[in-house]
Amino acid sequence: MAQAKLTIDLDALRANWRALSAFSDTETAAVVKADGYGLGAGRVARALARDGVRRFFVALAEEGAQLRDALGPGPEICVFSGHMAGDTDMIRDLGLVPMINSIDQMLRHVEALPGAPFGVQLDSGMNRLGMEPAEWAALRGIALAQNPVLIMSHLACADEPENPMNARQLQCFREMTDGIDVPRSLSATGGILLGKDYHFDLTRPGIGLYGGLPFADASPVVTLALPVIQVRELEPGETVGYGNTFVARRPTRIATVAAGYADGIHRIMAPKASMMAGVTRCPVAGRISMDLIGVDVTDAPEVPEWLELIGAHQPVDTLADWSGTIGYEILTSLGARLQRVYRGE
Amino acid sequence: MAQAKLTIDLDALRANWRALSAFSDTETAAVVKADGYGLGAGRVARALARDGVRRFFVALAEEGAQLRDALGPGPEICVFSGHMAGDTDMIRDLGLVPMINSIDQMLRHVEALPGAPFGVQLDSGMNRLGMEPAEWAALRGIALAQNPVLIMSHLACADEPENPMNARQLQCFREMTDGIDVPRSLSATGGILLGKDYHFDLTRPGIGLYGGLPFADASPVVTLALPVIQVRELEPGETVGYGNTFVARRPTRIATVAAGYADGIHRIMAPKASMMAGVTRCPVAGRISMDLIGVDVTDAPEVPEWLELIGAHQPVDTLADWSGTIGYEILTSLGARLQRVYRGE
Repeated sequence: MAQAKLTIDLDALRANWRALSAFSDTETAAVVKADGYGLGAGRVARALARDGVRRFFVALAEEGAQLRDALGPGPEICVFSGHMAGDTDMIRDLGLVPMINSIDQMLRHVEALPGAPFGVQLDSGMNRLGMEPAEWAALRGIALAQNPVLIMSHLACADEPENPMNARQLQCFREMTDGIDVPRSLSATGGILLGKDYHFDLTRPGIGLYGGLPFADASPVVTLALPVIQVRELEPGETVGYGNTFVARRPTRIATVAAGYADGIHRIMAPKASMMAGVTRCPVAGRISMDLIGVDVTDAPEVPEWLELIGAHQPVDTLADWSGTIGYEILTSLGARLQRVYRGE
Repeated sequence: MAQAKLTIDLDALRANWRALSAFSDTETAAVVKADGYGLGAGRVARALARDGVRRFFVALAEEGAQLRDALGPGPEICVFSGHMAGDTDMIRDLGLVPMINSIDQMLRHVEALPGAPFGVQLDSGMNRLGMEPAEWAALRGIALAQNPVLIMSHLACADEPENPMNARQLQCFREMTDGIDVPRSLSATGGILLGKDYHFDLTRPGIGLYGGLPFADASPVVTLALPVIQVRELEPGETVGYGNTFVARRPTRIATVAAGYADGIHRIMAPKASMMAGVTRCPVAGRISMDLIGVDVTDAPEVPEWLELIGAHQPVDTLADWSGTIGYEILTSLGARLQRVYRGE
């Protein structure tokens, strides 16, 4: 029982979905790829389905297959990577909806599964996934005759509202799709916040559901508490951890907690990182090791049994700042060894 | 089938164990904590058991329980975090051997499971886990009367052979244990390479088994290949990915591969990272996103179907350099979504 505890507040998650849904008059789906941004795609999707979410997005057909197991029949499961070689059985047997990215995928889908639902993914300038304008111009007649259920694209700079790329991509998407009688989707969380021009018929929030920026008003979803497994008193001059990078400058109390970079606590954050003992901020002492972290708890009023790394005082985006990354990566890094505890339904 | 493929060469792993074992005349165990450094503790341990490894180390009792399922009865499974509250049933029912870290743990173990095997973990200066000299002096009579199976400590700076901390810890460990008739262990991979003074009765290699530094002669164990799911041609001036950070300076061919930071490919490595198309080095183009990475494959002689991120041309420690971390973290970050394929036995 030296297992760190990751608590996931499903009520907060559902509140975030409702708040993001309220930004638009259109359908609001949910992105649960990468195992629900590390929080458990099945639990996350089932909680959202109770609030009426009927469409979910994943990255790979394999993720879609697992999600279908968790959700049962009914909700639509859309696959961003489209219809890859080897996906046909999963798509057919589990009723997945591939977002077709290329002429090759279109041919594969129509030949293998004629009449099976699909969407179309267009590239409006990110140059990552989807058909480009010229490719789409050549294919659209054939594609539209097959009755796609959705036409979508993805914004490259939606987290920066002032970036002119947003308007360029919006215009490109409109030029590729205006006048087509198929539901359209352009926006994830960032795009939802850009306003109604970006909403079209369906929005697809991801990070905002899980409490991360750019949705600044999100309710926090995740708490990560680490068990203290040993406490020791240091004399000035004593060192802690690998490479002796922490040197005690005063009589110091060090707590060793049972978690480390193998749990997704990025090693690079150590010099800036702290943990909370109640309301007392306690700096990490020395390097983060694979399964253990030393923490300077000298200023805590009593010896803590747990230290909180992620929570109200230190949200996911604070850890992202310490690590030189974004909240999304903090979430998806959270490891399998953490005990996941769900609150709410 | 847009799943990235992580190939784990169990023959190379076993060769690394034999090579590390040959450095000493003493018993050589294996550290398989953090799910075998991300490679699958059960598969790794079973492969090593075939070569005669009879003792394995894990971080937590929960890991030990899973490993016992994989190994069956027989091999000894030692738990670094010791005997924590709540561990008693796992320790008894699954025959785990806790490395006792404190007087509290000693009392808990002896009271709950009198006669059950245990080891003692001493702190020789790392100030992370284990009993300090004063604590040990008070307890050693009682502890030795209970017949510990092992007395161990851990080096803080073994990766730096010249660091005087190594000799200080060696001396401290000797002062705490000389004359005691119980098997002793001080060294993991780094300590094994420091020479015979550091070997005592048992060595416990970890990272060296998996092909990482500081064991420079290790055979590479891991290959990570990422499937190309789309290829596109860019005109000069076109951009790729989030934030438009890649701008084409020439007519450019971009391959999008289906893997990202959610698979443990650290986002921070993007500006330095490359992938191999055969023997052609292809730089990452723009940011690493959650499930997708753009790669500039213009110089590849043909359009690749797969790109290799980890392999003979780019070992784990190269990725560590790109990310500002160590090979250990590259391995333990490798995500659950990767398809794990085992070679050898």
